[in-house]
Amino acid sequence: MTGSLTIAGLGPGDEALVTPEVTAALATATDILGYAPYVARVAPREGLTFHPSDNRMELQRAAHALRLASEGRNVVLVSSGDSGIFAMASAVFEALEETPQYQGLPIRVLPGVTAMLAAAARAGAPLGHDFCAINLSDNLKSWAVIEKRLRLAAEADFAIAMYNPRSASRLEGFGRALSVLKEAGCGDRLVIFARAVSTPDERIEMIKLSEALPEMADMRTLVIIGNSATRRVGRWVYAPRHAR
Amino acid sequence: MTGSLTIAGLGPGDEALVTPEVTAALATATDILGYAPYVARVAPREGLTFHPSDNRMELQRAAHALRLASEGRNVVLVSSGDSGIFAMASAVFEALEETPQYQGLPIRVLPGVTAMLAAAARAGAPLGHDFCAINLSDNLKSWAVIEKRLRLAAEADFAIAMYNPRSASRLEGFGRALSVLKEAGCGDRLVIFARAVSTPDERIEMIKLSEALPEMADMRTLVIIGNSATRRVGRWVYAPRHAR
Repeated sequence: MTGSLTIAGLGPGDEALVTPEVTAALATATDILGYAPYVARVAPREGLTFHPSDNRMELQRAAHALRLASEGRNVVLVSSGDSGIFAMASAVFEALEETPQYQGLPIRVLPGVTAMLAAAARAGAPLGHDFCAINLSDNLKSWAVIEKRLRLAAEADFAIAMYNPRSASRLEGFGRALSVLKEAGCGDRLVIFARAVSTPDERIEMIKLSEALPEMADMRTLVIIGNSATRRVGRWVYAPRHAR
Repeated sequence: MTGSLTIAGLGPGDEALVTPEVTAALATATDILGYAPYVARVAPREGLTFHPSDNRMELQRAAHALRLASEGRNVVLVSSGDSGIFAMASAVFEALEETPQYQGLPIRVLPGVTAMLAAAARAGAPLGHDFCAINLSDNLKSWAVIEKRLRLAAEADFAIAMYNPRSASRLEGFGRALSVLKEAGCGDRLVIFARAVSTPDERIEMIKLSEALPEMADMRTLVIIGNSATRRVGRWVYAPRHAR
């Protein structure tokens, strides 16, 4: 009996944004692992076991998923968005390095609609020109690294998608990020606050960076900073395709 | 009779990566516009008119889509991948700026699985840490801008997803991009060449940047340059979640 591990992104929230590939993987799974709110998005059925876990348990969860697969289970490890973007896929490969006996297991990574794509689509096309994506959580890297990247991203004139701008345990970082960008001359750039996109709690706000306040973001918000050419047309915001 | 314009991403190729939201939009469309190979991915049916067009006709195509919607048609403008990432959404908003009489039309942008997400999933998790996405086509910006961004991206230690690395009319640029990155000290970084991901022509290659050759990419290739910590485990490549 050969088990398998599928690492799947459930998209930002709306079931209409879950790919058929992921839906098919969920339909043949025996075990679902993931952060509890994401596991709760999978419909229960007979023969399907849920293993919800807490936030910040990524490595333990990944090791658990590998062990279950090695025991013959068909495991799906779920993330929101895309599991390769600041989510569970990297944690699985870290765990796999520590447990080489599992490297022969059938493992698949299934892509999904990551939060910045859904947020950008609601706002218009702010990622239509070169851009970067930065995880503002300082659980896994120092603020010095984050600030350096923000300064270089401003100099490169990238649009900037900010994941995890703020959480209950990290109140100050996002304010510092806004300050760094103001100092880098980005005060006139447009900022999009996209909260809980594609869920009933969705809220989209657009404002100039110089007027943005840290409390406009929370843990369910994806922030997109426009590049220097990003502009409004009607209710939309977009990055022109040309660079000067 | 009110028409509408839906700007939809079809994903990288496999029908199992088309979101149900996009499938539903296609099912109620009266007109499909897009670059011919993408229009060809939509199944014909009675009452559905196809308007395929050539590459590099983005603005004309966008204006055509707006005009048809204003005439009461339910238009879907298709891109591959995600229409907001180096695709048609920005062109539509540019066209909308030139034709303000259409700004009241119902317009929706539907996200999709963009090429870098599908490529990353096949390779492992090379975008699991901070990264940037750069369009290497110099149709719309100068090589000086592209080179500056590559140097800053290397300094920021971003992974780099390169869209449109090479085409029949642009043979030299990708070689220059590799040279810029070698000069920036990225010779030891891992490079993923992901060609035609999720289609029958899919081919994934991984190699050190110092050994990469321009001819390893063509117009159907998405290139991902790892960051300085990106590593192999078994047949996979991933970016660790931590930064030093």
